[in-house]
Amino acid sequence: MIKLAIDAMGGDYAPKEQIEGAMLAVKNIPDIELTLYGDKSEIEKYLTETTRIKIVQSDGVIDMGEKDPIRAIRSNRKSSMAMSLSSVRNKENDGVVSSGATQALIAGAHILVGRMKSMKRTAIAPLIPNTRGSSTILLDAGGNLEIKAEYMLQQAYFATIYAREVLGVEEPKVGLINIGSEEGKGRELDKEVTALFKENKHINFIGNVEPKEVLNPPCDILISDGFTANIVMKTIEGTARGIGTILKEELSKGILGKIGLILSIKNLKRFKRRLAPEEIGGAMIYGLSGVVIKAQGSSKSVGFYNAIRQAANVVRQNVIEKVSEVIEGETVS
Amino acid sequence: MIKLAIDAMGGDYAPKEQIEGAMLAVKNIPDIELTLYGDKSEIEKYLTETTRIKIVQSDGVIDMGEKDPIRAIRSNRKSSMAMSLSSVRNKENDGVVSSGATQALIAGAHILVGRMKSMKRTAIAPLIPNTRGSSTILLDAGGNLEIKAEYMLQQAYFATIYAREVLGVEEPKVGLINIGSEEGKGRELDKEVTALFKENKHINFIGNVEPKEVLNPPCDILISDGFTANIVMKTIEGTARGIGTILKEELSKGILGKIGLILSIKNLKRFKRRLAPEEIGGAMIYGLSGVVIKAQGSSKSVGFYNAIRQAANVVRQNVIEKVSEVIEGETVS
Repeated sequence: MIKLAIDAMGGDYAPKEQIEGAMLAVKNIPDIELTLYGDKSEIEKYLTETTRIKIVQSDGVIDMGEKDPIRAIRSNRKSSMAMSLSSVRNKENDGVVSSGATQALIAGAHILVGRMKSMKRTAIAPLIPNTRGSSTILLDAGGNLEIKAEYMLQQAYFATIYAREVLGVEEPKVGLINIGSEEGKGRELDKEVTALFKENKHINFIGNVEPKEVLNPPCDILISDGFTANIVMKTIEGTARGIGTILKEELSKGILGKIGLILSIKNLKRFKRRLAPEEIGGAMIYGLSGVVIKAQGSSKSVGFYNAIRQAANVVRQNVIEKVSEVIEGETVS
Repeated sequence: MIKLAIDAMGGDYAPKEQIEGAMLAVKNIPDIELTLYGDKSEIEKYLTETTRIKIVQSDGVIDMGEKDPIRAIRSNRKSSMAMSLSSVRNKENDGVVSSGATQALIAGAHILVGRMKSMKRTAIAPLIPNTRGSSTILLDAGGNLEIKAEYMLQQAYFATIYAREVLGVEEPKVGLINIGSEEGKGRELDKEVTALFKENKHINFIGNVEPKEVLNPPCDILISDGFTANIVMKTIEGTARGIGTILKEELSKGILGKIGLILSIKNLKRFKRRLAPEEIGGAMIYGLSGVVIKAQGSSKSVGFYNAIRQAANVVRQNVIEKVSEVIEGETVS
């Protein structure tokens, strides 16, 4: 059985949507057991199915807008997020799924789950939709400013194994986000990455990728430093949001337009779903000694269920062990 | 009279669309005179109106995919782009509009037009559409890697004067592109920029702006280093393109959907126009001793006409002189 800790109290629509997502998960995934961390009386309002689900009482929630995430975690060890994370270190669970505050989850995971010994830095890897109907791994979206090419190489190993084992891509390709496609473009770091990645046998490096192909890239993994990748992620979000606003404004104009809009509702909903990040799963934090998945803060039940399914897949495929083997083999050879 | 040089041969649809754009311009803007640089016999095929338009024969075109732009310019001094640029240095014209290769135009402008004495670095400033129906200046999209906070301050002066004089914004606001909105976020450069911009009396600095607001920012000017802003520009482009692909695929599904699509065509066209960069004008190269506007490579006549109008406005409003005054006043005080 795969055992997962669920932070039932984190997220914009917690605990309702988290609990409904958890119930969907046990119904659809036979080999999982879930422990919901949260306010027992609140959880019991929504929990109508208790097969392979148990509740552990927690005390307090990490606020979504928390300014000092490290302090928030340290001073709220009984919060649903902290208790979920601690349960992984204590081997009570194999992984955690949380829709709680991103920075608090990253900080908490560092403190309470701990890093994989072999991996130098953690990274956060959201999945972004692409026009082919699958998804691209984006690294490192965590805003981590201190980066070296060798840390990025470890992240690329992780993403490659993740893509192979969880996304089912046979030979995952890695592209470096850059301002031009020719080799030699970009900053000193980009040149170091190219030199280091090019000859490496564990990854399939295709060189630079310009973000004008960001939703249809010639690769499965897009990598850059934590600042740049975070900017890319937020620019995608901002552009999609802005385009959505403009589309909504324009499509409702005129009588014919209004009729057209009504007839197109179903297609527009599907269009929207194809761009919704929660449809494709949460962001995994790479480099921890346990599986930690950050689901969207705005997750509804199906989105949260997708993140649970993703966590179960990562555990089932022994992704962390496989990454360790590659990195440790590297260090020895 | 405002005298503008037109690179008639640069661009995906040159010279036809460039010439039609030029004819639109003389028709609509009474105080301009245009000189078309290009192949005379080719130009004459399309030029049906010669009031305030003359032709100067050039020889050769700078290729759009040019790998070594500096060499391309140096070895093609008779090309339409090089001759247009040189005519500004020789005071035959007040400005240039070109849809030719961006990097060649930047390199050529450096060599053939020259920098403003007071400005330390050039920058390229595209206009990006926003959901409010106006546009935001993005700096520096040129991929210029070598940057200091003080160069960015000069660019912010330029953009502020441009926004006031050309876009008609009374008190233009400047935002720093960053991974978080709180002060202190980001890299060393971002902290230096914040310290330098905060107390400056020539600009109205509002602090950090996350790119999840990139199409609806709380400011008129978004600034970052040349690498980051280029990544932002290309991510907007890639996201818009990807969303367009998905929208097209989904909207044509089903019979009702197809009817809906037909009824929505007019609205969808207007939606597309609101996102088209050429609708709002070209990108100005800041920091030159003459006005150089880069129109989209894919410009059609109206887009190219918009870029000519923009160039004429910049000349008419004496933007370069006004920027010089501010920067020189700064150095003295």
